[in-house]
Amino acid sequence: MIVTTRASWLYFMFAARGTTLSRIWRRLTVNVVFALVMTLGHMQYGWLDGRDVTPLPFTLIGFVLSIFLGFRINTAYDRYWEGRRLWGQLVNTSRSLARQIQTLVGAGPGDPAVAERRRRLIYLVMAFPHALRIRLRGEEAMVADLGPFVTASELDQLQRERNRPNALVQRMAELLDEAYREGLVHPMHLSLLHQSLTSLTDIQGGCERIANTPIPFAYQVLLRHIVGAYCYALPFGVLLPLGLLTPVVVLMMSYAFYGLDALGEEIQEPFGSDPNDLPLSALCRTIEIDLRQRLGELELPDPAQPHHGQLL
Amino acid sequence: MIVTTRASWLYFMFAARGTTLSRIWRRLTVNVVFALVMTLGHMQYGWLDGRDVTPLPFTLIGFVLSIFLGFRINTAYDRYWEGRRLWGQLVNTSRSLARQIQTLVGAGPGDPAVAERRRRLIYLVMAFPHALRIRLRGEEAMVADLGPFVTASELDQLQRERNRPNALVQRMAELLDEAYREGLVHPMHLSLLHQSLTSLTDIQGGCERIANTPIPFAYQVLLRHIVGAYCYALPFGVLLPLGLLTPVVVLMMSYAFYGLDALGEEIQEPFGSDPNDLPLSALCRTIEIDLRQRLGELELPDPAQPHHGQLL
Amino acid sequence: MIVTTRASWLYFMFAARGTTLSRIWRRLTVNVVFALVMTLGHMQYGWLDGRDVTPLPFTLIGFVLSIFLGFRINTAYDRYWEGRRLWGQLVNTSRSLARQIQTLVGAGPGDPAVAERRRRLIYLVMAFPHALRIRLRGEEAMVADLGPFVTASELDQLQRERNRPNALVQRMAELLDEAYREGLVHPMHLSLLHQSLTSLTDIQGGCERIANTPIPFAYQVLLRHIVGAYCYALPFGVLLPLGLLTPVVVLMMSYAFYGLDALGEEIQEPFGSDPNDLPLSALCRTIEIDLRQRLGELELPDPAQPHHGQLL
Amino acid sequence: MIVTTRASWLYFMFAARGTTLSRIWRRLTVNVVFALVMTLGHMQYGWLDGRDVTPLPFTLIGFVLSIFLGFRINTAYDRYWEGRRLWGQLVNTSRSLARQIQTLVGAGPGDPAVAERRRRLIYLVMAFPHALRIRLRGEEAMVADLGPFVTASELDQLQRERNRPNALVQRMAELLDEAYREGLVHPMHLSLLHQSLTSLTDIQGGCERIANTPIPFAYQVLLRHIVGAYCYALPFGVLLPLGLLTPVVVLMMSYAFYGLDALGEEIQEPFGSDPNDLPLSALCRTIEIDLRQRLGELELPDPAQPHHGQLL
Amino acid sequence: MIVTTRASWLYFMFAARGTTLSRIWRRLTVNVVFALVMTLGHMQYGWLDGRDVTPLPFTLIGFVLSIFLGFRINTAYDRYWEGRRLWGQLVNTSRSLARQIQTLVGAGPGDPAVAERRRRLIYLVMAFPHALRIRLRGEEAMVADLGPFVTASELDQLQRERNRPNALVQRMAELLDEAYREGLVHPMHLSLLHQSLTSLTDIQGGCERIANTPIPFAYQVLLRHIVGAYCYALPFGVLLPLGLLTPVVVLMMSYAFYGLDALGEEIQEPFGSDPNDLPLSALCRTIEIDLRQRLGELELPDPAQPHHGQLL
Repeated sequence: MIVTTRASWLYFMFAARGTTLSRIWRRLTVNVVFALVMTLGHMQYGWLDGRDVTPLPFTLIGFVLSIFLGFRINTAYDRYWEGRRLWGQLVNTSRSLARQIQTLVGAGPGDPAVAERRRRLIYLVMAFPHALRIRLRGEEAMVADLGPFVTASELDQLQRERNRPNALVQRMAELLDEAYREGLVHPMHLSLLHQSLTSLTDIQGGCERIANTPIPFAYQVLLRHIVGAYCYALPFGVLLPLGLLTPVVVLMMSYAFYGLDALGEEIQEPFGSDPNDLPLSALCRTIEIDLRQRLGELELPDPAQPHHGQLL
Repeated sequence: MIVTTRASWLYFMFAARGTTLSRIWRRLTVNVVFALVMTLGHMQYGWLDGRDVTPLPFTLIGFVLSIFLGFRINTAYDRYWEGRRLWGQLVNTSRSLARQIQTLVGAGPGDPAVAERRRRLIYLVMAFPHALRIRLRGEEAMVADLGPFVTASELDQLQRERNRPNALVQRMAELLDEAYREGLVHPMHLSLLHQSLTSLTDIQGGCERIANTPIPFAYQVLLRHIVGAYCYALPFGVLLPLGLLTPVVVLMMSYAFYGLDALGEEIQEPFGSDPNDLPLSALCRTIEIDLRQRLGELELPDPAQPHHGQLL
Repeated sequence: MIVTTRASWLYFMFAARGTTLSRIWRRLTVNVVFALVMTLGHMQYGWLDGRDVTPLPFTLIGFVLSIFLGFRINTAYDRYWEGRRLWGQLVNTSRSLARQIQTLVGAGPGDPAVAERRRRLIYLVMAFPHALRIRLRGEEAMVADLGPFVTASELDQLQRERNRPNALVQRMAELLDEAYREGLVHPMHLSLLHQSLTSLTDIQGGCERIANTPIPFAYQVLLRHIVGAYCYALPFGVLLPLGLLTPVVVLMMSYAFYGLDALGEEIQEPFGSDPNDLPLSALCRTIEIDLRQRLGELELPDPAQPHHGQLL
Repeated sequence: MIVTTRASWLYFMFAARGTTLSRIWRRLTVNVVFALVMTLGHMQYGWLDGRDVTPLPFTLIGFVLSIFLGFRINTAYDRYWEGRRLWGQLVNTSRSLARQIQTLVGAGPGDPAVAERRRRLIYLVMAFPHALRIRLRGEEAMVADLGPFVTASELDQLQRERNRPNALVQRMAELLDEAYREGLVHPMHLSLLHQSLTSLTDIQGGCERIANTPIPFAYQVLLRHIVGAYCYALPFGVLLPLGLLTPVVVLMMSYAFYGLDALGEEIQEPFGSDPNDLPLSALCRTIEIDLRQRLGELELPDPAQPHHGQLL
Repeated sequence: MIVTTRASWLYFMFAARGTTLSRIWRRLTVNVVFALVMTLGHMQYGWLDGRDVTPLPFTLIGFVLSIFLGFRINTAYDRYWEGRRLWGQLVNTSRSLARQIQTLVGAGPGDPAVAERRRRLIYLVMAFPHALRIRLRGEEAMVADLGPFVTASELDQLQRERNRPNALVQRMAELLDEAYREGLVHPMHLSLLHQSLTSLTDIQGGCERIANTPIPFAYQVLLRHIVGAYCYALPFGVLLPLGLLTPVVVLMMSYAFYGLDALGEEIQEPFGSDPNDLPLSALCRTIEIDLRQRLGELELPDPAQPHHGQLL
């Protein structure tokens, strides 16, 4: 995620990094060069003489294309925002679950054995966001990130798991079950704790749904057919009235249309590590700080800092 | 569902399989041939001389048609995404229910009789998505798919059921009831387990709602009347300015309008086995792998692989 | 609800029954006749000579009218879909409540007195959708439909009730209360059953909200003023360029605008028995079949069949 | 709320009461008179000669204004519908809470002391909608409306309260607490009853949120600046082509734009007693009838009747 | 938040404070001056002679820009409204939690030690909104605002906390835990109280999500590129038909486009203290009054009053 400190209008006007330009400059260049060739060919050799094309069809298709693109970015933004909402929910559930563990597991604040038990459980809660991030970003190489939060044998077993976040939730359930059988948790409160575990599972499933389900193929193909046909046909519609200005106008319009399509592409997969993706690592860190402070730890890690203006 | 590996812009431009073209090429061809005949007739015999038709009405109707089509695909996409969300919820609920069965049913991890009981319950959880898939896709012939998850007598009874997923949930409730009466489940936790069963029933009902409720008939008829009238009248509106280019323009516009309508048709019924439908079989497999691993089974089936780029 | 078996594009193009035409043919005819008279008057006697009207205002108003109509049908569709969702939820809650009654009321499957009790409760669950349908459709004459599901004295009392569905839920609560006081239901599970009753009440209230709250009056009046002014003024805007084709164009545009408005009218009240309304009777039957089969009854009624392609 | 009995299209066309006209006739008249003066000035003295203004800017701004107005009424309608949904939820919660009180408080149906206790609680439930209506409509003078539902000392105390609905919910909680301490309510069921009280509080807060939060000021100002500038500049854009018809066209367009803005104003505050506001009094009455019948009272008040076609 | 008392249409037309003008007057002035220079240059020296630019591209881009801006303000408004909804939920949860503390903690209304305990808990509930406001607005200097609600040692500890609202919820959980261990709270009711704490945490997380997640960078950049290109190119498109009126038209259109963009900026961050932001301080006061009155305190603070028409 790109973090700006209330940058001015001008800053946004001349920004390049993190924009859609990096995705579309190739197709944009080809399109404008095509328009330039057509313009020069017409100017020089009269390629289009006697082949008057009115701008009418462009107005007609312009409507429907604009509305289609509008829904496109709206759909993409909904996915982005739902992804953010799920990770926000993960922050909330982690805090609530840690609080429940602190006050509902065990017999009062005094007992060190109980305190250790709570600590182990809360460390598993801290491990969950990391495991989810690793799964969503496909960072198999970073499983060691879970190391500080689990025991060596747990880490070993996690290595072999296909679905690590789910295994972590199962592990929490087992530890709670143990505590319940030893009479440290009231059956009523075990239900409450299980509801928080269910919430973790729902968050994981929601993220996987977004990560694994692309926008329907036919949807994207149709949109790109119309955008492509529009932008390549455009020179024929505006050459006669515009003359040498044709490539400029084609540039402006293609930028708008290709740009909106690319914007959809950019934000519809919010869990990667592109400049516009969600800062999953920073959110993992936020959870870690909150929970460690609740455990009374004094050496807290620093919040994640943006790197070249980008929070990962 | 069509699975692409971040294909390039060009790939999408020239894709044919899984696009709306397969649905609309007939009506598109007829429409363009009609435009061609009109164009040649006018060129040759002056059919339209003295019958000047301005493009004005096309601009006017163009607005309202674009907006109507925009809502059409939005409505269709909402159905698609709700279907996906329900199956995502099914993944989550299966994982949570299995975890609850593992830790809330029976007296500690040791007892093999209890372990067998849990295994039977979790196998019923695995059977549920298969039964739902069979029901939604009308695959009566594939009831045997449930075989590995239920006992022979249960399978026999399921054959005679009109509503198999519901019968499976009832079966789970009965097994839980038995465990409860034998004192293996705390009454509080039985409530929790019942809430997960209710969630399964809600998911089933949500899917049936989408599968059984078409877009209102009058909605579709009105849309198709306007699209049809527009596309067939279009040659009369653009023949004079465009001349021989008329069929090309009619092709572009008809493709956009028929295509958007067909796109709505394609994605509004997400539970079939068309190229753009949801990969229900793959999701059943995902659930199976997750749950078998939680049971500690070592021989896990492989995740479903796309077949010619399509996940079923 | 009109049920079609994946009808072809042509079928939709020439459908008449269940379309908006039945609502709008009068106003459409008057409008087109008016346009015809104006056209002939102008052709014959030059009514409009020297009163050039440009199509400009029609373009300008066309935008805002299109967007207004777009939101109009969207709002209407939301009501339709929410109605469907509520009845889908009714199917789900009935299944879950029946399952809860079967497994949480009484002492194991053996006792016939308990079985009879459960049967009575589940019959009340079956009666609820019928009572709700009767209330929503105002079918006072069909209260006898409740007969098969309640005792004679209950039926007698229901006749005198102003709010029958609510009385049925109260009756269920009383029977559950009896069972609870006799120790047949755990207090925890009584809570669970009460939550299902609350869900029934929420569904009823949601349906009543849709049935009793029209689209705000000022909203409809403003829309119809603009549509009416537009369609009657249209001939003056297009007569000069279009001449004798004016009535045809007026027909096309009026059909689109009146049709969209009538479509909103048609689907915004989803609980009637118009061709595009929801098939409440069929849903009542679905619930009945599901619940009877769960009770182990062998003589099941058939699912509702469409009558002349319409499911009631 | 204006109640019509499926009025005809013509009825809506010529309706005046309850429309937006009552809000906008002043600004509309001034605008049209301005257009008339400009038209006559130009006709007589050639004010605009040599100052050709093309309609182009009006088309350009027309788009964005239409879309802005579209979102405006959509936002307003969402507030209206959310208000209705909250009052619908109030109907539901009242019914459910009354049912819970009837069956979960006290020892069986026989005891008259318990019956009186239930009656007092249910009367407080009936008082809540009245108190909420009084608060939302600012009808301080009508606090006596609560008289029939509370004791004299309670009424006296309510007079001094700043937040009466909240005080009523607190009172219910106290009575339930008393019953709980006397062993008349199971602790489990007290939780259930408290959840219904929380639901009442949520409904109250939701209504207050809508009533106290206007559409952002900058939003309204910007919209009105654009609408005003558009409607006053319009004569300059259409005078040359339209001549004497200018005021007519200005009337049509200003009516559409001012009307849509006023429609937003009208429906965004749904709790007043304007013709298009929600019938809060009628809903209070509905709840009262339902609950009195559940208490077995035989003398029920009549449902609220529309007064001059308007339900308050 | 700007509070107006049903101001007239004229008031809105001539309002300046709290409008978007304060944000955009610079870029607007530069743009209009540019248009003026171009106009005069063309009039005087014929800069654009022979460089006819038709308005066509402006119509074409106008569509897509309008729709993009429409979604922009819709997205911004959704964030604003979600922020309001969360603070409304905070009002509700505070009231419900206070009621639960009053009736579920301790043994009847008589005991003063219990009453003091309840008072301490409810004071912590009052402190929460203040702590959240301080965090969202970054008002580190105002931590002393929490003073009246917590003990000196608690305040001291809060000073050192990174996440004060979360620490407050933890503190409530600890006090409840103490009461539970002393037998003053039923385990069932402790669950209920914990659910309210979870709700507080969810509200906090929801607010942080909105405050910390900007609209995606690429989204804003693309929008501003198109708006900027459009507004600066506009003079070339309208100079020939409009002549000296060009700067006026450019002013109108730039105001609409820059204004809509700035409106989005203004309302998308609802937790600041700009004129259009939410009145967090006033809401904190509302909660304080409600809860103090429920505690039976007689000296209540006054509701927050608007300062120069603005509620903070």
